[in-house]
Amino acid sequence: MAGSTLGTIFRITTWGESHGKGIGVVVDGCPAGLSLCEEDIQQMLDRRRPGQSKFTTQRSENDTVHILSGVFEGKTTGTPISMEIQNESQRSQDYSDIANYYRPGHADYTFDQKYGFRDYRGGGRSSGRETIGRVAAGAIAKKLLKEFGIEITAYSKEIGRIPIETFDKEEIERNPFRMPDAKAAQKVANYLKERMHECDSVGGMIECITSGLPTSLGDPVFEKLDANLAKAILSIGAIKGFEIGDGFAAAKTCGSENNDAFRLNNGKAVKMTNHSGGVLGGISDGSDLIFRAAVKPTPSIARTQQTITKDGKEIEVSVKGRHDPIIVPRAVVVVEAMTALVLIDALLLNMSSRLDYIKKIYLNAE
Amino acid sequence: MAGSTLGTIFRITTWGESHGKGIGVVVDGCPAGLSLCEEDIQQMLDRRRPGQSKFTTQRSENDTVHILSGVFEGKTTGTPISMEIQNESQRSQDYSDIANYYRPGHADYTFDQKYGFRDYRGGGRSSGRETIGRVAAGAIAKKLLKEFGIEITAYSKEIGRIPIETFDKEEIERNPFRMPDAKAAQKVANYLKERMHECDSVGGMIECITSGLPTSLGDPVFEKLDANLAKAILSIGAIKGFEIGDGFAAAKTCGSENNDAFRLNNGKAVKMTNHSGGVLGGISDGSDLIFRAAVKPTPSIARTQQTITKDGKEIEVSVKGRHDPIIVPRAVVVVEAMTALVLIDALLLNMSSRLDYIKKIYLNAE
Amino acid sequence: MAGSTLGTIFRITTWGESHGKGIGVVVDGCPAGLSLCEEDIQQMLDRRRPGQSKFTTQRSENDTVHILSGVFEGKTTGTPISMEIQNESQRSQDYSDIANYYRPGHADYTFDQKYGFRDYRGGGRSSGRETIGRVAAGAIAKKLLKEFGIEITAYSKEIGRIPIETFDKEEIERNPFRMPDAKAAQKVANYLKERMHECDSVGGMIECITSGLPTSLGDPVFEKLDANLAKAILSIGAIKGFEIGDGFAAAKTCGSENNDAFRLNNGKAVKMTNHSGGVLGGISDGSDLIFRAAVKPTPSIARTQQTITKDGKEIEVSVKGRHDPIIVPRAVVVVEAMTALVLIDALLLNMSSRLDYIKKIYLNAE
Amino acid sequence: MAGSTLGTIFRITTWGESHGKGIGVVVDGCPAGLSLCEEDIQQMLDRRRPGQSKFTTQRSENDTVHILSGVFEGKTTGTPISMEIQNESQRSQDYSDIANYYRPGHADYTFDQKYGFRDYRGGGRSSGRETIGRVAAGAIAKKLLKEFGIEITAYSKEIGRIPIETFDKEEIERNPFRMPDAKAAQKVANYLKERMHECDSVGGMIECITSGLPTSLGDPVFEKLDANLAKAILSIGAIKGFEIGDGFAAAKTCGSENNDAFRLNNGKAVKMTNHSGGVLGGISDGSDLIFRAAVKPTPSIARTQQTITKDGKEIEVSVKGRHDPIIVPRAVVVVEAMTALVLIDALLLNMSSRLDYIKKIYLNAE
Repeated sequence: MAGSTLGTIFRITTWGESHGKGIGVVVDGCPAGLSLCEEDIQQMLDRRRPGQSKFTTQRSENDTVHILSGVFEGKTTGTPISMEIQNESQRSQDYSDIANYYRPGHADYTFDQKYGFRDYRGGGRSSGRETIGRVAAGAIAKKLLKEFGIEITAYSKEIGRIPIETFDKEEIERNPFRMPDAKAAQKVANYLKERMHECDSVGGMIECITSGLPTSLGDPVFEKLDANLAKAILSIGAIKGFEIGDGFAAAKTCGSENNDAFRLNNGKAVKMTNHSGGVLGGISDGSDLIFRAAVKPTPSIARTQQTITKDGKEIEVSVKGRHDPIIVPRAVVVVEAMTALVLIDALLLNMSSRLDYIKKIYLNAE
Repeated sequence: MAGSTLGTIFRITTWGESHGKGIGVVVDGCPAGLSLCEEDIQQMLDRRRPGQSKFTTQRSENDTVHILSGVFEGKTTGTPISMEIQNESQRSQDYSDIANYYRPGHADYTFDQKYGFRDYRGGGRSSGRETIGRVAAGAIAKKLLKEFGIEITAYSKEIGRIPIETFDKEEIERNPFRMPDAKAAQKVANYLKERMHECDSVGGMIECITSGLPTSLGDPVFEKLDANLAKAILSIGAIKGFEIGDGFAAAKTCGSENNDAFRLNNGKAVKMTNHSGGVLGGISDGSDLIFRAAVKPTPSIARTQQTITKDGKEIEVSVKGRHDPIIVPRAVVVVEAMTALVLIDALLLNMSSRLDYIKKIYLNAE
Repeated sequence: MAGSTLGTIFRITTWGESHGKGIGVVVDGCPAGLSLCEEDIQQMLDRRRPGQSKFTTQRSENDTVHILSGVFEGKTTGTPISMEIQNESQRSQDYSDIANYYRPGHADYTFDQKYGFRDYRGGGRSSGRETIGRVAAGAIAKKLLKEFGIEITAYSKEIGRIPIETFDKEEIERNPFRMPDAKAAQKVANYLKERMHECDSVGGMIECITSGLPTSLGDPVFEKLDANLAKAILSIGAIKGFEIGDGFAAAKTCGSENNDAFRLNNGKAVKMTNHSGGVLGGISDGSDLIFRAAVKPTPSIARTQQTITKDGKEIEVSVKGRHDPIIVPRAVVVVEAMTALVLIDALLLNMSSRLDYIKKIYLNAE
Repeated sequence: MAGSTLGTIFRITTWGESHGKGIGVVVDGCPAGLSLCEEDIQQMLDRRRPGQSKFTTQRSENDTVHILSGVFEGKTTGTPISMEIQNESQRSQDYSDIANYYRPGHADYTFDQKYGFRDYRGGGRSSGRETIGRVAAGAIAKKLLKEFGIEITAYSKEIGRIPIETFDKEEIERNPFRMPDAKAAQKVANYLKERMHECDSVGGMIECITSGLPTSLGDPVFEKLDANLAKAILSIGAIKGFEIGDGFAAAKTCGSENNDAFRLNNGKAVKMTNHSGGVLGGISDGSDLIFRAAVKPTPSIARTQQTITKDGKEIEVSVKGRHDPIIVPRAVVVVEAMTALVLIDALLLNMSSRLDYIKKIYLNAE
């Protein structure tokens, strides 16, 4: 089944494997008239790029984006925007040994079951490199949202078992862990060195806050804004959980604690608290949209593990290759991209919710 | 936007409001040849029905289903199955006062923002009664899955702050909380009485286990099985979080703890643990599929709360009407239904993943 | 596969069989704020209804529509509009003999091949009664389009081999054939009486003209406006051909004859001719949208025909029951409905084509 | 809106403009296990390529395809197949003059209306070069269909006003017009030289025959096989009409003439005639699938024509550049590609129509 397409109006289709010729994405349905150049995309790709610190894979990739269509004289034309990033550092020989066994925690076994065989080089389509297409498309979505004053900020809220204790937005991009708390980041660095020494990896939790979102995005029943966010976030390889607002903690509260009271501020409705995380009934309520995602530890570890071969033998393996001991900081960028993609689609879809909106476009009504 | 449709091949479309003429669903894409009668649907609707205990709304509804199309001589014909449940106990006068203000924790405010006005009677389309259509469709999905030995069991894992401590599957349907632990259920009953006395409500956590699932369901990238489950579950009104396998706890572990080792059992691949919850790379891995959902406390409480009116005044309200102090036990049934709907669609979509499968159908190949 | 849904934003799902309990449709994605009552729907259904003249089936059906959801205080709420029409005149015994053989020109054989068996009563899902859902939904689409000055008029252009020679719009609904030419209609009446005497049926051609359409509807490549119209029209049971503008005649011309020159009229672009039929590159060009559809003769005829039985015997049959000797006049209404459904969806989808449109909605920009 | 995607299971997304960097397509949902190499694609692209005779544009393009993903060790992996064809012969200066006026019969005017501006170089996205992506994807679809004995053959049935009079399949690829009649082709050559001398262009009619199709493809109501074919064919730039079986001629017949009788042949159902063109009720009936498409004359002609400029002046123009005086022969290849894409999707979708088919896959039932 065609599983590489996301979105209804702003729709993206990604392609590419870890050790194939490249990775790419086609963005179809981007409105005409947005200023766009490769640098807009590259900035976000650079944040996701490997090799930014000693805590990420040492695979060296420039991940240089090329826009192949859909932009003319510096503006989007309304037709598909095709973007391509060539793979430069394929060392497929690193992976030849994994052709015949199933790495624990990876999709090797399920791909073989589903398709009969697999492109085993670097995980093929199930590699983290697949997210490059998402990030390139997300960069366009983020730029569009910015035209409407909508800003998305994600960061590591906890890595290993070390949570942030303060919040300094400026700090996020200053440390290799994308933590808004320099002290916590230092603790994580120490913790991580120990784990790396033990040939182990760690997980963490990402939080994402969107400000400036108008009310009304999302649709009742199956296309709730939080439902689409949950799908988008869980579609990222290593994500194991999603919660919005108070999330799982809400399950432990009473209604009197969890309900957000409405008051007026200069005649405008405001919620006194935001336990709901910015949605009510699946529709954005005008307050900040806040959710969290759980990231499992990188499954590729150099420690000895038990597994089986393709032809049915029990073996012990130690996964070689260039792996991130922690993918949380790079996943932060992917979370932002996925959030942007869901929000822009919801924003465009909401335009047809009311007859008076439609009259604004076609009858120039007020 | 059309938000009331779910699924690609097995596709459902629901309709109806709390105090309109009825609630219904059209199931399109159900394969031909399944034995089906109204009793198959009614059984599952009865589990969701209000008035099963003193801990649910006292609104009295029989929720009797009528199959209007798509079944002939006791079997599905492959054409749309339309099902309708009439509303019997509309007491709209209970709700006339909520026409003009926004209940905290409800979708009243966002519906007015999105659509310009709303059917305020009993919450209209955002009422919990909307889930009747899901459960009716889910009953067909469950019956189909059973043909392949796939069984879905959901239950309350925690209510208020009281978790289950033992697991007795038979106990689930014996107590009003759908808890597999009679002692925990008794504690919950006591706790809930206190909260009800205080005009308050409580939330909880649901766990859902699917056994007998073949490998290979779900697609890489955006149509991962867990991503679609997350969307389906978050689309249920009061759900605020979703986690699969170890979920948020996985974020606190190391790779060496979280990876599931593969071994052989009678020549068949088995995982020694199931931290992943039954999916690897978004594709079912043959072990039990296990996820949890966080349910917020019922927002309708009789306590005094602060809110605003439609025409911009700050007021205090106490929500009247017939409300569940806890919706978790009834939501258990909805979770099962949504799970069944996602799984059957994934099962049907997976049929075209391999050329040799297609030859089995069209060339009668082995 | 789920084949009973049409549309992306304005999306309809139909259900029901000829001799089941009823026929219905769910319209999801209708913008909020449109005045709507059952009479709006009934008017269009009455035009499609059987028994309007001696040239249609004598099956007596009132085809009374009930709106079950989505409308509150006389206006659409933005949530699904469920409509139901009960079957009143099922005389299933008429059809018991067709359970075991395949009527030539009908879908009996292909349904049995596809699904293994079929609801044979009156053709089941493949009956012309299936179009009731389309017409009910189309009535809403037509009403919406009218808010923007868009009018759709279809009529019989030729029946049997008798074409119209004059065009009087007022005449269309005055004669039983929906021909805009009273004289041609009289000739058709005579011709048809002869064919009915011979137990035969006839076909014809429908033309549909839409005026008031803005430019810009339709999308390049696969979602061209004419492509979606072609699909919608060919999806009507007896339609065997579709052509837009000069259609098949254009294939016989030279470029110098077929191109439409542009000139200015009060500073506004106008085409001097309309060979293209109102689309250029699949996008509406502001001139009238004109297309034609070929309708095959009703396959149910009382004459002796050769066919086979379900269990493999060659037989001769004469199809009994109450059949239209000509379905063209009733199909005219279905063509209008399908056109309206395609146009409203294109109109809503086009809203997000330009960044400046989106700013009109969200930033209140001029 | 995202208009560049086609198909539900076997889904393609095309991108690219006439004078941009290239043209491409992503094929998602192709089953795993099909042998595939670039030569398979190149063969079909070569048939569509310009410069094959003096009757096509003299633009010189090799249209060399590169497969960038989705194929491993010579077989499709089930993941997206990205294909790219670079533009080599962009002579954008030829088109600078069309930046400011609207060519009659082209999409220049409607693109400007829809998007506010356009990539005018060579028609941008509305150029015939856009079909390269369709043909590359169609080559894969054709190869898949061949595994099931399904063969698609399209040819020119009439060019200018000159119809074929005999049918020799071997002749089709021997003459520059893809006519199965050498004599007719010779007449066309003479006729065309005259029109080219007059700086004019001509249209024609394409017929497409598919043999070996199983029964059961296509779905009732909106997803009829002929409806999806009509959409796919009308989505090709210059196509103005579609008819299946007897098509418009059927509208002039009686039921007794148009119905196809069923008989038995070695115990298997056969139709004695094929007026229906291979579908009954929108589902393939096992006989040859036959349809025709009307192609308008190339709108780009060097003759003087009247038009307007972007800034509202009336002018006379003569369109320069390298244009086909007749596109019918090249469109034949595109028609085959679109047919293959519709058929493979219908074939895959039909797999889930019956419970017993599903059991064949999952329970290994007979």
